[in-house]
Amino acid sequence: MQSFELDKTDILKVKQALEGDDQELLSLLTEYHASEIAILFESIPLESQKKIINLLPIELASEIISEMSHEAHPEELLIDLEPDKRQEIVEELDYDDATDIISQMHEDDQHEILGDLDKEDAVNIRNLMTYAEDTAGGLMNTEVIKVDADMSKKQAIDQIILQSEEIEEFYTIYVVDHDDILKGIVSLKDIIKAKANAKVSDIVKSDFVFVKASTDQEEVADLISQYNLTSIPVVDSNMKLLGRVTFDDVIDVMEEENTEDILKFSGVSEDEELSGNWIEAVKSRLPWLILNLGTAFLASSVIRYFEPTVTKIVVLAGYMTIIAGMGGNAATQALAVTVRRITLSDLTDNQAYKTVVKELTVGLINGAVNGLIVFLFAYFYDDNLLLGLVIFIAMTGNLLIAGITGAGIPLILKRVGIDPAVASSIIITTFTDVFGFLLLLGLASKLLL
Amino acid sequence: MQSFELDKTDILKVKQALEGDDQELLSLLTEYHASEIAILFESIPLESQKKIINLLPIELASEIISEMSHEAHPEELLIDLEPDKRQEIVEELDYDDATDIISQMHEDDQHEILGDLDKEDAVNIRNLMTYAEDTAGGLMNTEVIKVDADMSKKQAIDQIILQSEEIEEFYTIYVVDHDDILKGIVSLKDIIKAKANAKVSDIVKSDFVFVKASTDQEEVADLISQYNLTSIPVVDSNMKLLGRVTFDDVIDVMEEENTEDILKFSGVSEDEELSGNWIEAVKSRLPWLILNLGTAFLASSVIRYFEPTVTKIVVLAGYMTIIAGMGGNAATQALAVTVRRITLSDLTDNQAYKTVVKELTVGLINGAVNGLIVFLFAYFYDDNLLLGLVIFIAMTGNLLIAGITGAGIPLILKRVGIDPAVASSIIITTFTDVFGFLLLLGLASKLLL
Repeated sequence: MQSFELDKTDILKVKQALEGDDQELLSLLTEYHASEIAILFESIPLESQKKIINLLPIELASEIISEMSHEAHPEELLIDLEPDKRQEIVEELDYDDATDIISQMHEDDQHEILGDLDKEDAVNIRNLMTYAEDTAGGLMNTEVIKVDADMSKKQAIDQIILQSEEIEEFYTIYVVDHDDILKGIVSLKDIIKAKANAKVSDIVKSDFVFVKASTDQEEVADLISQYNLTSIPVVDSNMKLLGRVTFDDVIDVMEEENTEDILKFSGVSEDEELSGNWIEAVKSRLPWLILNLGTAFLASSVIRYFEPTVTKIVVLAGYMTIIAGMGGNAATQALAVTVRRITLSDLTDNQAYKTVVKELTVGLINGAVNGLIVFLFAYFYDDNLLLGLVIFIAMTGNLLIAGITGAGIPLILKRVGIDPAVASSIIITTFTDVFGFLLLLGLASKLLL
Repeated sequence: MQSFELDKTDILKVKQALEGDDQELLSLLTEYHASEIAILFESIPLESQKKIINLLPIELASEIISEMSHEAHPEELLIDLEPDKRQEIVEELDYDDATDIISQMHEDDQHEILGDLDKEDAVNIRNLMTYAEDTAGGLMNTEVIKVDADMSKKQAIDQIILQSEEIEEFYTIYVVDHDDILKGIVSLKDIIKAKANAKVSDIVKSDFVFVKASTDQEEVADLISQYNLTSIPVVDSNMKLLGRVTFDDVIDVMEEENTEDILKFSGVSEDEELSGNWIEAVKSRLPWLILNLGTAFLASSVIRYFEPTVTKIVVLAGYMTIIAGMGGNAATQALAVTVRRITLSDLTDNQAYKTVVKELTVGLINGAVNGLIVFLFAYFYDDNLLLGLVIFIAMTGNLLIAGITGAGIPLILKRVGIDPAVASSIIITTFTDVFGFLLLLGLASKLLL
């Protein structure tokens, strides 16, 4: 298969086929991978999605639903299906995917769907629903390949082949005792390579990384990334094996966390759906804007205080916005580098100190260079040397403060246990506005009046 | 092993051990995983790193070096080692890791190191160095497990066991013909489960995803993520198998791309190293700030144009900064959501149109709410109804424009093939500054004078 990107032609073809004969639609759809049809679903109405799901074999239909992004609302599609079809699809889903989708429904719908299921499936899904969505428990799948430590090589291989009927992909085999207590891990390769008379306990690797069900998903992602793991076992406090989280779940988590980081950084609530409607967007953003309005009044009160100065030297009104704006941008630069660095690894006290000193230096230099340009403009265009000097000092001072706060505030927040991303550019910009106005107008009223 | 986070105690223990007896240091280090020692290296000087590398067995030493982040400069450590030690370590490295590290060196050092190597290794590394760093060729490892399509089950298993001596981890087995042309993939599980008399060609999966060596790393990451692959084969234009890219490389790529996204979004050059020194930071950020200074002069020229108005109604100076600032923040919000959405998937024309309409609506509502608050302030505090009305209109208009440009500009840039992230908040903020000043001061000079 060619590496594939869904384009307009594909969407058009499917839309046309939806109008026509079922057999033609079916044969067109078989050209696509489940994950491609899932993407295609984002561009067609619910009715058409339903038609396609009803047409396809259960296995493919459930794969498509499991591949649909959270934002495409697979739960709405599922609720809309005939109860029989729905039951078959849910029973075909992996428990973790079924749990994710059912968790998004209203309680009544949840009861209805779980009531229709086979008892064992319903218990497993209800059980998974008790874990918070953003923890290892919320991410894990309970279906794992496991063998007993005292099995022989042959018994182990037979067990693996038997269990692999149910589990499509497996990367690591878990070794447990009779009470399901996790003793170690082993790879299929190691079993194959073992001597014919070897026992599992001879080749088990008992030095392995694991997580608790309550471990935060970000930590799970860090461990999988740090140790290059295809999967990580999830255990309870007695080391009983509960399930596993696989690398593909972690790739999804990373995308999600990165979206949240960019949103928080820009003063948008982290749970705003990118493709949500305007009502959600207003709910997510208006509180931040109103908070910012409060801080903007603070900055403008500095200007009000110096109104007599501005009235006398009205040219300050133009420079004011340049100095505040440049401070905000320099602070955003320092903030982005520092927040991203904290996200990727913790800084020692010494590294934190060096970071602030570095940003202070950068602010001083960038401030002086930009200050010089504005000085020259004031000197030659406005023909006012003293005004030029005041502006030079204000620019340099404001960019210096921008560097210190851009690096220092997220570092302090991290130290006191607050998410450094709340120091979003909105907050830090207010700081440089206030300081920029204070420095420019304060100096001007002392030196130029 | 407990899930692990390196803390100050660990760093302190190692630092103390570095002062003491080699045997004690060695026994302390064996408590850590290679990737943990690699992180630890970020907090200790080059001399201490060198001491540890010289002390440890070659295999572990090379693993640590391969796990060191790009920013910790493993190439500097390698250059600093004795030639014999260095050669042993490089020969132990995977070709892709060796290539990445050697590429970072000066040409003289590259020649020296490659000259010392076994001829085959040197040829392989030189070959990999010809691929651009951010392509599948630059990411791939040339060591893969491959079997011939016409092998029997037993021959294939023997081959896999033989080849797996050299390759620590393998997730997919590649099926090739006698000319190394890739015919399909097969998993170890499928081979084990096959009948005793089966041939590889009976169980090969000939429907698979692959990439060219020149494919951009972001596309490689998208494919691995979309199809939940542990690895993806890299081929030339004749389908000859060149190597494979594994999911762990892609996790690193994703982290790197996300760092670049946040930096670009904040007006920082995407290649600024997060832990780089102040000289690099100034080089990376000063051009953006100077560009912004130019656009800030543009915004301030609007204020200069309306200077007579500001002189007469000096209270406008305070409101001016509120309206421009709020516009900038609202635009940043719309920009963040839109840029992130474009990053995750392409939008159809219809989706793009709907996005702009949504952001326009959000801007209108958020503008009206904030405009109302400022209106009330102007009416009650400044006791000026008409001023309040002017400010209300300016706030609503500016946030409306903020929504349209915050969503529209990145969408247009994407359509014409420019990276939408260059519409960084710096650029878009200038737009709302100019428009905000124009609207407020223009209206004020018509209605209030």
